[in-house]
Amino acid sequence: MRLVVQKFGGTSLSSAEKIHRAARRAIRAKLDGYRVVLVVSAMGHATNDLLALSNEICTEPPKRELDMLLTTGEQVSIALTAMAIHAAGHEAISLTAAQLGLYTDSVHLRARIKNINRNRLDQELSSNRIVIIAGFQGIDMSGEITTLGRGASDTTAAALAAVLHAHQCEIYTDVDGVYTTDPRIVPQAKKIDEISYDVMLEMAAAGASVMHSRAIVFGKKFGVPIHVRSSMTDGKGTMIMNETSSMEEVVVEGVTLKEDLAVISLHGVPHQAGLAARIFAELGHHHILVDDIVQNIYDDGKYANISFSINTSDASTAHNLCQQLARDMIIENVTLEQGVSKVSAVGVGMRTHTGTASTMFEALAQAQINIKNISTSEIVISCIVNSTDGVRALRSIHNAFGLDNHDSPSDQINPAR
Amino acid sequence: MRLVVQKFGGTSLSSAEKIHRAARRAIRAKLDGYRVVLVVSAMGHATNDLLALSNEICTEPPKRELDMLLTTGEQVSIALTAMAIHAAGHEAISLTAAQLGLYTDSVHLRARIKNINRNRLDQELSSNRIVIIAGFQGIDMSGEITTLGRGASDTTAAALAAVLHAHQCEIYTDVDGVYTTDPRIVPQAKKIDEISYDVMLEMAAAGASVMHSRAIVFGKKFGVPIHVRSSMTDGKGTMIMNETSSMEEVVVEGVTLKEDLAVISLHGVPHQAGLAARIFAELGHHHILVDDIVQNIYDDGKYANISFSINTSDASTAHNLCQQLARDMIIENVTLEQGVSKVSAVGVGMRTHTGTASTMFEALAQAQINIKNISTSEIVISCIVNSTDGVRALRSIHNAFGLDNHDSPSDQINPAR
Repeated sequence: MRLVVQKFGGTSLSSAEKIHRAARRAIRAKLDGYRVVLVVSAMGHATNDLLALSNEICTEPPKRELDMLLTTGEQVSIALTAMAIHAAGHEAISLTAAQLGLYTDSVHLRARIKNINRNRLDQELSSNRIVIIAGFQGIDMSGEITTLGRGASDTTAAALAAVLHAHQCEIYTDVDGVYTTDPRIVPQAKKIDEISYDVMLEMAAAGASVMHSRAIVFGKKFGVPIHVRSSMTDGKGTMIMNETSSMEEVVVEGVTLKEDLAVISLHGVPHQAGLAARIFAELGHHHILVDDIVQNIYDDGKYANISFSINTSDASTAHNLCQQLARDMIIENVTLEQGVSKVSAVGVGMRTHTGTASTMFEALAQAQINIKNISTSEIVISCIVNSTDGVRALRSIHNAFGLDNHDSPSDQINPAR
Repeated sequence: MRLVVQKFGGTSLSSAEKIHRAARRAIRAKLDGYRVVLVVSAMGHATNDLLALSNEICTEPPKRELDMLLTTGEQVSIALTAMAIHAAGHEAISLTAAQLGLYTDSVHLRARIKNINRNRLDQELSSNRIVIIAGFQGIDMSGEITTLGRGASDTTAAALAAVLHAHQCEIYTDVDGVYTTDPRIVPQAKKIDEISYDVMLEMAAAGASVMHSRAIVFGKKFGVPIHVRSSMTDGKGTMIMNETSSMEEVVVEGVTLKEDLAVISLHGVPHQAGLAARIFAELGHHHILVDDIVQNIYDDGKYANISFSINTSDASTAHNLCQQLARDMIIENVTLEQGVSKVSAVGVGMRTHTGTASTMFEALAQAQINIKNISTSEIVISCIVNSTDGVRALRSIHNAFGLDNHDSPSDQINPAR
């Protein structure tokens, strides 16, 4: 019997009416002959409301207690969704991560999934029930409540889809799919019908907020097709899968903007094996996630400059750590630049097409935008620019790669193009 | 090392400021040399807000899912209280019922405590932490989330105090103790300094809402003194304990009013052994809690009339069940009377003092209030009256037993006396 995992985000569950709508979708899939597992986020702004409550109590709450607090949001959603399915005359049961047996490591607020116990799931699905799982949450081996990071209900859904060998993992959201860039910034953005895991992964990492990266990793690793679609309409959204029919033709598939970044640069790093490893091990040890890393050497290879981008929220901690390391490792100096953004072009086969990088740099030059750092990989070119230039940079690159949708009605009314 | 259990109700946790106040109380007890276990309810109106949410989804939610929903309220409170204690520089840890190991039966919404695992508690207390437990909730043997009934955080606290051999169980609330009757209805009511478990139990059962009956049962059974006191002041409240110094002098210690009742009467019940048992077994089987039962016989003992009072919310279910039983057992007829209240006088030694019952009946007669049913026990006399007469009945009886506080300033301004 085929199985589908459906995930509903907070905006798709922000009222009783929307919860009933999610319930009806699950029921329809069941009536279509699927076994159905639902993964739900906290309702609307519930997580932010809980964070506001904790801020009223103190500014730096213990992470364990923050996890204890935040996981209530999803518990409310699973109970209400189960009630809605019952009210429509179908069998459903809600399960917390503890009841399901979704085990993680013990890193509060940023836990990673270790293992999912199938027993309870299989038992409930065999009893013909729709099973509703609280997204975002887990428990560690000693029963402590953990969370997987903001937006990680996607990850819960993809992990469940992997474990259950789901036919498909459906991500219901308030947009109708993945776009060539953020349509709120560039109204000419086009919806993408199919995209590969790798390109989607780079787009998510480069700032496309529609999907949580770790969810895509699960999809890729276990070969689960992920369907990103609107919770309000029945239209086909974007299919994230292994091979896409359009792969050969398209070069740049999407353009992204990642804001609220800072760049930390270490100048005059003695160029010895293991130094970079030591720096990033130290940051990793403090659970600081580093964005892109750029290194180049100078002075006949005796010294290196290393820079990396990082979320603004981690910037001062990371800067302090690097200053300590600089003293230990005799690094010339460490600088912190706040207020920068990263604009990236993503697509399979970019490197084998000549001119992709130069098209991007030229677009920025014509818009008179200075590029700070550049980093490239097989399918991504990223440039760090001033925050104030971010949106203009995104628009010019989107246009330069011919991604603008000239049929879009918003074309006429958007002066920014 | 002596241990104290402190329980804070929803009104004592309705804002960040009040949560900090509760945290300070716990810290003060710790600095005074106690091991401290806190039990907290959901903040302010949180439980009612959650019920309203579920009502938006459907009118008759599955009880299991309602428990899943409602227990989030206490989980929010334990996390915030732990944060407040941390913010004040002390060690604390919050635990859900599942993490603690507070096991109940599987009757959702009305579960009863079976067993509390001390291991985690002892471990955290030995680490010098203040332990914060979510009241009201439990888990059954298969890990399903249960609740103990509205107001049952008191019960959680008393049960923990019993298991941990606590020096005292402190119930912090928005009133400064137990009164001779509800001071909101009778401003002349007096605070009681000491009261026995038995009298308190009868007063709670008869409608005094300050404490949850089952909490008092735990206190009595395991000899834990319960101190009901205000969360806003440091004054002594009411001590519920085994022996009270004033027991010999006082006859009627309190007067209570229980509203929202109905009376079901079965007329012409063939007077055979086992019939009453069958009726109440059937009601118990449907988890309907019966209030007082009155039976008398007539026609040379061939027939009996049985009536019982019951909460309005259970009245129609109970009435239907009794009508079915009436057909099976050839009972003449079954009537349901809605809209009644019960007024009770409670006190040790009432039965051995002549004139207690007649004082009560006379007070009602002088107030021209008709008495429907009467039931008495060793320490209680209860009369069922029309709901519309309830408050007047309470005031006249409180006055008739000399309980009015003539020093009360409200004495002058209350025209109802």
